[in-house]
Amino acid sequence: MTPAEPGAGWSRRRLLIGGGVAGAGGLAALGADYASRRARASGTDESPSLNGEVRIPFYGAHQSGITVEPQAHATYVALNLKKGVAKKDLARMLKTITDDAARLTQGVPALADSEPELGTVPARMTVTFGFGPNLVARVAGDAALPEWLGSLPEFGIDQLEDRWCDGDLLLQFNADDPFTIAHAVRMLLKDTRSSADVRWVQRGFRRAQGSEKSGTTMRNLFGQVDGTVNPQPDDTDFKELVWNRDGWMTGGTSMVIRRIAMNLDKWDRLDRPGREQSVGRNLANGAPLTGVNEHDEPDFTALTPVGFPVIPEFSHMARARTPDRSQRIHRRAYNYDDAPEPGKISNSGLLFVSYQADATAQFVPIQQRLDELDLLNEWTTPIGSAVFAIPPGCDENGFIGDTLFD
Amino acid sequence: MTPAEPGAGWSRRRLLIGGGVAGAGGLAALGADYASRRARASGTDESPSLNGEVRIPFYGAHQSGITVEPQAHATYVALNLKKGVAKKDLARMLKTITDDAARLTQGVPALADSEPELGTVPARMTVTFGFGPNLVARVAGDAALPEWLGSLPEFGIDQLEDRWCDGDLLLQFNADDPFTIAHAVRMLLKDTRSSADVRWVQRGFRRAQGSEKSGTTMRNLFGQVDGTVNPQPDDTDFKELVWNRDGWMTGGTSMVIRRIAMNLDKWDRLDRPGREQSVGRNLANGAPLTGVNEHDEPDFTALTPVGFPVIPEFSHMARARTPDRSQRIHRRAYNYDDAPEPGKISNSGLLFVSYQADATAQFVPIQQRLDELDLLNEWTTPIGSAVFAIPPGCDENGFIGDTLFD
Ligand code: HEM
Ligand code: HEM
Repeated sequence: MTPAEPGAGWSRRRLLIGGGVAGAGGLAALGADYASRRARASGTDESPSLNGEVRIPFYGAHQSGITVEPQAHATYVALNLKKGVAKKDLARMLKTITDDAARLTQGVPALADSEPELGTVPARMTVTFGFGPNLVARVAGDAALPEWLGSLPEFGIDQLEDRWCDGDLLLQFNADDPFTIAHAVRMLLKDTRSSADVRWVQRGFRRAQGSEKSGTTMRNLFGQVDGTVNPQPDDTDFKELVWNRDGWMTGGTSMVIRRIAMNLDKWDRLDRPGREQSVGRNLANGAPLTGVNEHDEPDFTALTPVGFPVIPEFSHMARARTPDRSQRIHRRAYNYDDAPEPGKISNSGLLFVSYQADATAQFVPIQQRLDELDLLNEWTTPIGSAVFAIPPGCDENGFIGDTLFD
Repeated sequence: MTPAEPGAGWSRRRLLIGGGVAGAGGLAALGADYASRRARASGTDESPSLNGEVRIPFYGAHQSGITVEPQAHATYVALNLKKGVAKKDLARMLKTITDDAARLTQGVPALADSEPELGTVPARMTVTFGFGPNLVARVAGDAALPEWLGSLPEFGIDQLEDRWCDGDLLLQFNADDPFTIAHAVRMLLKDTRSSADVRWVQRGFRRAQGSEKSGTTMRNLFGQVDGTVNPQPDDTDFKELVWNRDGWMTGGTSMVIRRIAMNLDKWDRLDRPGREQSVGRNLANGAPLTGVNEHDEPDFTALTPVGFPVIPEFSHMARARTPDRSQRIHRRAYNYDDAPEPGKISNSGLLFVSYQADATAQFVPIQQRLDELDLLNEWTTPIGSAVFAIPPGCDENGFIGDTLFD
């Protein structure tokens, strides 16, 4: 059962309809029941009037949390498998957390939820699972390892810290409500704790739901419009770019997560023209320096009166772009802003997250070009890096990752 | 100019009207202009249709951020004054950050805002300033110190960690949008950095705006409805309970912030009746164990068939309550949920925050009773503590704290 790309086109209406479709299934029906009881209790009709009640379908051909209009909050948790945890333990764990996620995303408390009252506000939550190479190998041997799964090649710009790198199992939580995420994280970690330890937790945010018009491209903490040129679920080539077609990974994707520190103090010393040239777009609305509106096509041949390219060749946009249309990625980044280190006033950056059918073929060439030359490197430093295999979705009789166990 | 308790009664309509009132002033008018330009740009009418555009008035007899319906996010930053920073430096700094806060809360970028595009979504932001004893003494000598300003008495339950205690200057940010707060924190810290260093940062959350009906009492991470019995801005005695009437503090208040770790693992081992007895209220809707609805008056004399009080004498509610109506406080807590320590799955608790005219006369007796005996102490541990003097509000010709400088 695949409700035609949940959230495709990112229309709220579509999401609601999506929710209705999922309502055909058992668990999802439970969710619908809860939601309508809540709606009745609050004296409203059956269709969600509050964003807190909007549910993103969990089951489907693909995992959710990739194509849905990005929610306000993200928490990524990476876990290390404990020694001696075997294939059957992992199957049991994955079944349990699949069930937890299926329920909580529909506003239904987890089985044996210790705080059931905290599990009833889905707020567009999605929970997405990813596997590191250790987990894949432990379940199905080295032969099952996608060739792109593992650490990325070393890049000259990297100053990676172990505490933000790698992991065996990734839990990705997105929702418009931070409380919904806090509860879900705890419920799932209770069910992984006999098999795995937390390795790192990274949290990010965008603007709150209701702060801006739906569909507004996010800004990052440099103030840049970030995410303009990005394959969208509606695009004809999105499927090919994002969904993998190899064996157990068919319908899945690869995820790259890079923690990139942004030096705001240094950035603040750069003047506005310098900032705009570093990316090749203006700060006001993200239009290319040769255009007026955000989505105008950049003209890389345009020259200034004195003969320099209007969009510098070394700008981030020029360097990130490739004429090879198969080398594109779907970005879904979040800002991070943690408590500053002693003597500092900021500890900020970007949780760069991208999904692509093949990380080696699509992500790496872009990162290599940026590593060679990218004006933006002056102000940004990758300090964390990980790649995960995001298995396909499942139906109500399966669990996330089940194709690996066949 | 005091727009009659901004947000009193917590109605969104009132807030909007409040915004209109503030629109009479210069800066606020700028804000209104911005907002209406934004509204026009998005094709809507002049009254904010997006929560991101809702502005809480900054100027007034009292600082905002106390009586306003609690926003989804809170960030509290405590600073240490640097050595050698004198009265005139502090006046300059306070003028600057007052201006920053006045602008940013109205959706107007700060003066010389380094990322002006990030300053245009007020999302009900309030910025509230508080002073520790060092700052007060440095400006106006020991004679100006309110008798309640300083560390609280030691309590037996406390396991205070220095890194969450005290401070010379407090910046309290609340907004429905985490991005709005991130930008504002940075702008203000840029303007304090020559005079002060960050001592600690604490972040908290409630449900997102739009997740639940406005006016729903928050829950904490134990799943409890938390904040039911709490003097509200509409109450006739709110003024006396909350606003101070002594000298330079007239119109101000005292703030207690306690970081209280909640042991979720231990809590999860307690059964539901045990949990409900620990507070004296049920978990479903927060009704007292002798009642049906959240706001029912508890009956402390009611007995079980076997003769025990239905609401245990040692329950948190019974112990926190006092017949002395002058010993009440206005609570405005947030949940915190930070990355777990190694080997753990949660690092959660409550940022207990209360405002009262006099912390010694109102807060301390309650905390002393809870220290002596409170079933809830089994699962909670105070690990941080600070008291700040929240000066009164100011008008557009003044700055927050100006009464201390007279
Ligand atoms: C903190 C680090 C980064 C910042 C602040 C940043 C910011 C931006 C901005 C402002 C744009 C222009 C607007 C847009 O189309 O989204 C952009 C475009 C882009 N970025 Fe980044 N970026 C960062 C890191 C990366 C990384 C690590 C990659 C991949 C390796 C990447 C790949 C791209 C791509 C593919 C585009 C679209 C280029 C095109 O126009 O075709 N970015 N980025
Ligand atoms: C993690 C620590 C705490 C938790 C989980 C907690 C939880 C609760 C809950 C569930 C209630 C009942 C509902 C309500 O009226 O809000 C309550 C009431 C109350 N709490 Fe706490 N509380 C904590 C700490 C404190 C502290 C430190 C104080 C003050 C020293 C305090 C003072 C009060 C007061 C005054 C009431 C209202 C009592 C009444 O019914 O008159 N609480 N608390």
